[in-house]
Formats: sequence, structure tokens, C-alpha cells
Amino acid sequence: MKVLIVFAHPDERSLNGSLLKVTVKQLEDDGHEVKVSDLYRMKWKAVIDEDDFLNHNKGERLQVAAASGGAFFNNKLTEDVVQEHEKLQWADTVIFQFPMWWFQMPAILKGWVDRVYSLGLAYGVGEHNETKWGDRFGDGVFKGKRGMLMVTIGGSVSNYSERGICGPIDDVLFPINHGILYYPGFTVLPSFKIFKSSTMTPEVYDDWVAKLKEHLHNVENMEPIPYRRQNGGEYSIPSLELKPEFGKSGAQGFSLHIHN
Amino acid sequence: MKVLIVFAHPDERSLNGSLLKVTVKQLEDDGHEVKVSDLYRMKWKAVIDEDDFLNHNKGERLQVAAASGGAFFNNKLTEDVVQEHEKLQWADTVIFQFPMWWFQMPAILKGWVDRVYSLGLAYGVGEHNETKWGDRFGDGVFKGKRGMLMVTIGGSVSNYSERGICGPIDDVLFPINHGILYYPGFTVLPSFKIFKSSTMTPEVYDDWVAKLKEHLHNVENMEPIPYRRQNGGEYSIPSLELKPEFGKSGAQGFSLHIHN
Repeated sequence: MKVLIVFAHPDERSLNGSLLKVTVKQLEDDGHEVKVSDLYRMKWKAVIDEDDFLNHNKGERLQVAAASGGAFFNNKLTEDVVQEHEKLQWADTVIFQFPMWWFQMPAILKGWVDRVYSLGLAYGVGEHNETKWGDRFGDGVFKGKRGMLMVTIGGSVSNYSERGICGPIDDVLFPINHGILYYPGFTVLPSFKIFKSSTMTPEVYDDWVAKLKEHLHNVENMEPIPYRRQNGGEYSIPSLELKPEFGKSGAQGFSLHIHN
Repeated sequence: MKVLIVFAHPDERSLNGSLLKVTVKQLEDDGHEVKVSDLYRMKWKAVIDEDDFLNHNKGERLQVAAASGGAFFNNKLTEDVVQEHEKLQWADTVIFQFPMWWFQMPAILKGWVDRVYSLGLAYGVGEHNETKWGDRFGDGVFKGKRGMLMVTIGGSVSNYSERGICGPIDDVLFPINHGILYYPGFTVLPSFKIFKSSTMTPEVYDDWVAKLKEHLHNVENMEPIPYRRQNGGEYSIPSLELKPEFGKSGAQGFSLHIHN
């Protein structure tokens, strides 16, 4: 495999930093190629603004989506974004590794998505007609590539269980897995989740490392999350509502959009 | 009311910029005081790092939560963060206004949360014992203040309906409403949501403005989202799982955590 890891933690001596080293070594030992976008080390610019679009006249009204497409199609994106596009093209597997802060990704990683996911590349792609509504949610430029989250979480697994106060962890991660990975075409693998990250003992750490290595061994052949394809006939076009005949009785919310 | 609006859009000539002006004027006409944190205009630093903690020795390992608490309790946070804390103390109502990008808030606003929500202020607060597990999810420093989202959304309302492919909009916003507003104690009001924001006509805009004004009129007396209090007896401590006797039959996922 060719694996791109997009890594978002400020310190390589952290739990996340250690896990990154384990991951890179394991993947390389297994014969895979690895590139890392270490966003803090790269001093990644997190905030999308007019400076991102080299053909935008400074001071003119900035319509972000239009400007993004205008720069993408005219090769007027900034060099840092272009390099990320090249890495994404190169990779067949993309891993986002981050600590969950406030039930979401850190700002620096959100800013990677905001800036790298250009109009014309990650969205606004494909025909809109009676049988399909753009290339998205299962189609899109990254179709054929695998995407996966590696997340450290401060809370305990029970906090994120079916009845846990934070909500089921896979629901908390749904807007990222389904909305950021599946939307532009990635095949989404089950996330690797580490709980109670802030109170880690050496023994517990060793257990997590063993589990992580096992997970990484399986990435190449792992069954993905079986999201329903937007253009696969199960959704009404253009409302994009799941047709009444699909979905298990009693299913509701995000779970409706997963085959089961 | 004293209203703080945290605003995250790069251009004041945008739909969001127009709605911000409408909002400020309406609130002031109704006799309220308004402050705006216009994050792009303030050139808000989005990325939390060692520079945020003035008592952190540069180059030493950065443990973000510990460093955040260490700076908070010793008055060693940066001036921009301190000013936001003062605005939050002043306000009785806080509105986050933003365009939804990739099913989440823009990076600049996420970076406001990451940096302003210090340990000792927004988390890591309160006793942990057999009947309560910290001051959070209904308790916390912002208890008694109202919080609300104003969000523009590119997709149509059907995309975010009960069976819509993006998931129900209130589930998509749950990690923000419940995880960022309710967690440190805000009473959370129903979000004001504008759909199909990228294809707005003047007529449709006028309709939204009328609805927005109506919503703002009601903010002071609006019924909040009835989330369950973590320490109110409905959750097991410390697993934080909803006890078996609570929750409507068949309810699942985020909806379990709302009284109904």
C-alpha cells in the first residue's frame, strides 16, 4: 500500500506521537510505503481566506466555494495545498490521526480539510440528473482509495457506548467518516479508537500498541463500513432521502445510512 | 440580554455577513447589548500550541490539557484568550454564527473553542464522587447562560431530514450543541438553520430574515433543548451511561440524551 498519514498533534513526545512512530514502523515493516503530513511541524495554515486563491483580487468579495473552484481549475492554488493534492493522488490509503478535542478534530486538521478539499476536486463534481446527484457519498475523486481515522479520546469507552452520555462513538465520528471521507469517494474503514488517553499507564499503552499493530495488519483486507451509495438506487433524487423500502425497521439517525 | 456573537466568516459581504448585521440590529432594536467576536477580522489564531501558555518552557514536552490549566490558574494565558474569557463572563447569551463546512464548524471557530475553552474553566471542573462526575453536561462555569447556533448550510432541508443522506441536522449539530455548549453548562437553545445557502435569491433571503428576526425575538424566553443533566440522577456514575429505566422505548443514539 501507499499510505498517507495526516497527523495533527503539537508534540511528537505525546501519546499520539508515539502511536505515529509505531504506525509508520509497522506499515514499513509490512512492506508498505508511508508519507506523513505532520501538520504542526509543517506549520500548516489552518484558516482558509483570500490568500489561498492566487487569482483572487485582494479585497474583492470572497465567495469561498467559487474562489476555490476558480483557483483549482486554473492552477492558482497555493503550493502547500498542491502538495497535499499530490500526496492524496499518490496514496491508496489515507489515515487521519488526531486527538479528539471537543468531540471534533483539532482546528489544524479541520483547516487541512477546509483548504485541501477544493471545489472541483472533493465537491461540486459530477453530473446532476434524474439518477445521480453529483459524484459524492460513495463516488468521487478518491474512489478506490481507503480512508481511516486513528483517534485518541479522553473519555472512557462507556461514555461513548450505546447509552453513554457522549453518544455512541461511531455516531460522534459519523460526520467525519461519512461527511469527510465517504463524501469524496473514500472507502471508509472502521476507526481505530483509543479511550482514556489522558490516563495511560505503560501496561495499558502496550495493550493498545498490540491492538494497533493488529489493526494495521488488517487494513489492506479489512471490511469497510458499508455506507449506502448515494447514487446506488436507494435514495430519492434529488431529495437524497432514503427510500421507504430501505433501512431496518426502527433504525433512525445516522445508522440508516449503513447497510446491515 | 447581553449577547456575544462569535462570528466565523471571511467576508462581511457574504450571506453570513448580512445575517450578522440583521442580527445585531434586531437585538439592539429590542434593547439588548451586543458584542461581536469577528474571528476573521480579529485575525484569530486558530491553532493551539506552546505559544498559548506563557509559563510553558519552549521546547519542553507540551501536554495540552495540563499546560492549559497551568496557564489558566496562573494567569499566563495570552491576551486574546483572556479577552474572550471576559466577553464570555459578561454575556448572558452566546451565539456561534458560522457556515457549516464539511459538516462541522470552520477551522477558525474550532480554534476559538480549542484555545478559549481552558482546563479549569470549561473542563476539568468540579468534584468527582459517587453522585457527580465533575461539573459538566448541564453544570459548569457557564450555567445560567444561553447558547445558540446560527448556521448556514449548503444542502437542502431534505438532505438533513430524518431519512436524509447527511443525517438529521440536529444529530449533525449534536456534538457542537451538546459537546461544546451544554458540556460547560450553557442552556442550549434550538439552532437557527438556513438551508440551500449557496443558491439564495432575494425573495428567499427576505423570508429567512423574517424568520431570523422572529427567532431572535424569542431567544430570551425560548424553551431550550431538554438535554438530560449528567449529575441529575439519570446516569450511572462513573460509567455515564443512561440508566435502563430512562429513555423512550426504541430511542437510540443522540436522541437518548434529550428528555421527551
